[in-house]
Amino acid sequence: MKLILVQTFIFLAGISSFAQSEVQKTRIADDIRAVMNKQAADWNRGDIPAFMEGYWKSEQLTFVSSRVTKGWQQTLDNYKKSYPDRTAMGALTFSDLEITVVSKDAVVVLGSWSLKREKDNPGGKFTLIFRKFKEGWRIVHDHTS
Amino acid sequence: MKLILVQTFIFLAGISSFAQSEVQKTRIADDIRAVMNKQAADWNRGDIPAFMEGYWKSEQLTFVSSRVTKGWQQTLDNYKKSYPDRTAMGALTFSDLEITVVSKDAVVVLGSWSLKREKDNPGGKFTLIFRKFKEGWRIVHDHTS
Repeated sequence: MKLILVQTFIFLAGISSFAQSEVQKTRIADDIRAVMNKQAADWNRGDIPAFMEGYWKSEQLTFVSSRVTKGWQQTLDNYKKSYPDRTAMGALTFSDLEITVVSKDAVVVLGSWSLKREKDNPGGKFTLIFRKFKEGWRIVHDHTS
Repeated sequence: MKLILVQTFIFLAGISSFAQSEVQKTRIADDIRAVMNKQAADWNRGDIPAFMEGYWKSEQLTFVSSRVTKGWQQTLDNYKKSYPDRTAMGALTFSDLEITVVSKDAVVVLGSWSLKREKDNPGGKFTLIFRKFKEGWRIVHDHTS
């Protein structure tokens, strides 16, 4: 009887996590899109600190391009230096998003970024790794090229 | 009694997964390093198909640089085209590896790559996402810049 009880518990726990997974994945993808939509809106209002709220506020935040930047503050400083005013910031669009839910607290996003500016339209690809924290989903690793 | 039994089961399951985690993480990191060491050795023997065994043999394999390549075969074809002979392949070194275990079947690796060639020494950064399959750990997503 004890054994059956434990087995039933394991079985139900398994069913429960399976039944939720597709629904959970859809909900997680929606949450990720919401963070990125907010980031684009913040950028396009010229508010880099607000845009940076999408990133993990930690010294372990990792930003990779041709070199590696560590830390939220350093990443913010680099953005401010590279984009000193609204003209440099242009209008940001994220597109071609492929959101892969790795686990209940980890997501990988592949996508394209582009800036519409007066004199040019730079753009490229990014791989983002999001982790879930108490405050919500945050980018912990950004590889942009 | 039934309740206590189930609670005990949950408690023990929790303890068990916690106790294993650091040991498991170290073992996983070792497994990842073994895959990458094999890749570098295969490359440096001039064997691109063997090097490609480190990648997920799937049409869903994602390779990102300035553009996105999908699929194992296409990634192999691109490598062969970019590195047609031993002179072009040079000697590959991976370094600065930061291995982050995301879950029991997902790992992120940040690192540097460099090629020592007769006429130049190209190099850069990569973010790899490994997943665990029956055949072992394989790269499912490679963002190289």
